[in-house]
Amino acid sequence: MIDELSALRRIKERFRNVSKSVIMGIGDDAAAVQIHPEKQLLVTTDSQVEDVHFIKRQISAEQLGRRAVAVSVSDIGAMGGVPKFFLVSLGFSKDYGEDFWEGLMDGFEAAGREFEMELIGGNISASERLFVDVTVLGEVEPDIMVKRTGASAGDIIYVSGTVGDSALGLKALLAGGKEDEYLVGRYTAPQPRLALGRELAKRKLVSSMIDISDGLILDLERITLEHGLGARISLGQIPLSSSYRRRISDFMPDPYQLALSGGEDYELLFTSTEGNAGDINEVSKILEIPVTEIGHVTPEPGIILLDADGKELSIERRGFIHFSS
Amino acid sequence: MIDELSALRRIKERFRNVSKSVIMGIGDDAAAVQIHPEKQLLVTTDSQVEDVHFIKRQISAEQLGRRAVAVSVSDIGAMGGVPKFFLVSLGFSKDYGEDFWEGLMDGFEAAGREFEMELIGGNISASERLFVDVTVLGEVEPDIMVKRTGASAGDIIYVSGTVGDSALGLKALLAGGKEDEYLVGRYTAPQPRLALGRELAKRKLVSSMIDISDGLILDLERITLEHGLGARISLGQIPLSSSYRRRISDFMPDPYQLALSGGEDYELLFTSTEGNAGDINEVSKILEIPVTEIGHVTPEPGIILLDADGKELSIERRGFIHFSS
Repeated sequence: MIDELSALRRIKERFRNVSKSVIMGIGDDAAAVQIHPEKQLLVTTDSQVEDVHFIKRQISAEQLGRRAVAVSVSDIGAMGGVPKFFLVSLGFSKDYGEDFWEGLMDGFEAAGREFEMELIGGNISASERLFVDVTVLGEVEPDIMVKRTGASAGDIIYVSGTVGDSALGLKALLAGGKEDEYLVGRYTAPQPRLALGRELAKRKLVSSMIDISDGLILDLERITLEHGLGARISLGQIPLSSSYRRRISDFMPDPYQLALSGGEDYELLFTSTEGNAGDINEVSKILEIPVTEIGHVTPEPGIILLDADGKELSIERRGFIHFSS
Repeated sequence: MIDELSALRRIKERFRNVSKSVIMGIGDDAAAVQIHPEKQLLVTTDSQVEDVHFIKRQISAEQLGRRAVAVSVSDIGAMGGVPKFFLVSLGFSKDYGEDFWEGLMDGFEAAGREFEMELIGGNISASERLFVDVTVLGEVEPDIMVKRTGASAGDIIYVSGTVGDSALGLKALLAGGKEDEYLVGRYTAPQPRLALGRELAKRKLVSSMIDISDGLILDLERITLEHGLGARISLGQIPLSSSYRRRISDFMPDPYQLALSGGEDYELLFTSTEGNAGDINEVSKILEIPVTEIGHVTPEPGIILLDADGKELSIERRGFIHFSS
C-alpha cells in the first residue's frame, strides 16, 4: 500500500498545475483558482462506487479513473459549459495495491488531457469498497447556459449519437463476451458530448438539455414531465447502433426497452424550436456527431411512445416500458 | 428506503437556494454560481467514511452530517477565506433507513446555517458502507490568502484552542463513557476556527496557516519541514484543556503524546513574525478564542520538542513521539 504522504508527493509531481488561473493547486488546505469575472462557475459532483457502478474485474483501473471524470464532465457539457478544473475524492482499499493505484492515476491524467482540465485537489480516504468521487468545476457565459427547464410545447426533441449501447455493453461484459468491443467500450469509456453541448449553447439553439445518465425516458421526464409538459416519441426514430441492433436479441426479446431505459450513454437529450432544425443539422455535420429528431414536446404531461404504425404504447412506470397496448 | 426522486424533491424543498449568487441550485446537471469578480475561488473536498472516520453507533446522523461539512469548512478557514456553497456526495445504504437519512439532512441544514453556506448540489449513490464526501466552495481576496508555505526561520508558532481533545474524546466514546461530554463533543461536533482564520488573514498577521486534522506534529511538519524549515516546540506550552488533563492518565501514561499526534481538533496552527504578537493577542481577545505561542520556526529542518527543563526530546517518526531521551 502506498502511504498517504508519498502518494501526495507523487500526485503533485504527476499533476503539475501549469495554468495561470490555478493560484493554489494540490497540496494546501484548499485549492484556489481564478474564475473568469464575466462567467458563471459550474460545479458538479458524481461518484463511481464499487459493486454499484462497476465491478473490479470488469473495468481496468485506468478506464475507471477516466470514466469517473468523464461522467462529471458530461454534466458540464449538458449546461453548455467548459470544464476547467477537477478534484478527486478517493476511497481506497489497500487490497487494491499499487498497480491499481497507478492505473487510476493514469486514468485521471488521461481525462485531464482529454478534457483540458487540471486536477487541483482532492482527498484520499481508506475505504473497504473503492469509491471515486469527482467534482468538476467549469465556466459558462451567463447568457448561454442551458438548463433542464426551458422546453415549450411544440419543441422538437433530439438525441445525440445512439442510445442503449452502454447498458448492452455492460450486459455483454457481464456475460464474459469479448467480441462486443464497441458496446463494451461505450460502457467502459463513455464519451461526453462536450463539443456538441458547447456549440449548441453558443449558438443558442436549444431550449433545454440534459445528458442521458439514467435512461432516455427517465431523463426525458426531467426536461418535460417535471415541468408540467409531456412528449410524444416515435420508437422507430430512436437511434440505435448497428452493434446494438445485431446483439440486442441475444439479451432481450424487445429491442427498445434497453435503449429507452438503459442509462450511462452520456448522450445529450435536448429540445429546440422547429425553426432551428437546419442549424442543428449543421452543427451535427460540422462536429461529425449524429443528432436525431425523436419526437416533440406536448402541452399535456405524460410520455407517449408511438410504434411504427403510429399506435400508442404505454409506459407503466418511470424507466420501465411496458409494451402491452 | 427513500427512492432517489422523492429524496431529491425533499432535498430541493428543504435546501432552497435563496442567495442571488446561486444561478442554478440543486436539480440541474450542474450548479451554477456567481463568484465575486475580484476574489479567488477556494475549493476543498473531504470524506467521512464509515468504520474509518466514524462508527455508526458512536455518532448521531445529524452530528455526522454537520461534522462532514465542518471539516471541509475548516480548510477554507485555514486559507483565510469565507465558505459560500457546498455540495454533498453521499454513498448511502438502505440499511440506514429513513430516520438516519433525515438526521443527515438535519446535519447538513444545521451546517449550512451555522457556516452561512448554501447547499447547491451533490449526488446520491448506493454504497454498502456509508460515505459522506463534502465539497466546499469559498472565496478569498487574492492578497490575503494564507498558504501552508510562507513561514520563515524565527517566526513564532501559535495554536488556537486546545489540542488532543478530539482524539481523547473518541477514546472515551469507544470506552463507552458518557461522562466526558466536553471531550466527546470535541470529536462529534468539531468547531472550525473560521472567524479566527479570517480575521488573522484580513489583518495579514500570519505567514503560514493550516488546520490541525492529522495531529499537531504532522501538520506542523507540513508548514515547516516540507519547506526545508524546522521548529522548536516547548511541550509545557502546548495548550491542554482541563478535561484533557483530568482524563488523559486514564487512557495513556504520557499526557502529551495524544495532544501532539491525535488529529481532528480542527484548531488552527499558524506562524507569524514576533512583531505581530500584540495584534494576534488582540484578535484572540476580540473573538474570545485562545491562541497560544508554542515555539518558533528554525532554519534547520527537524522538529525539536523541549520539556519543562529545556531538554530536547526526540521524535521517532511522523506523528509518533518517542519520549526516550
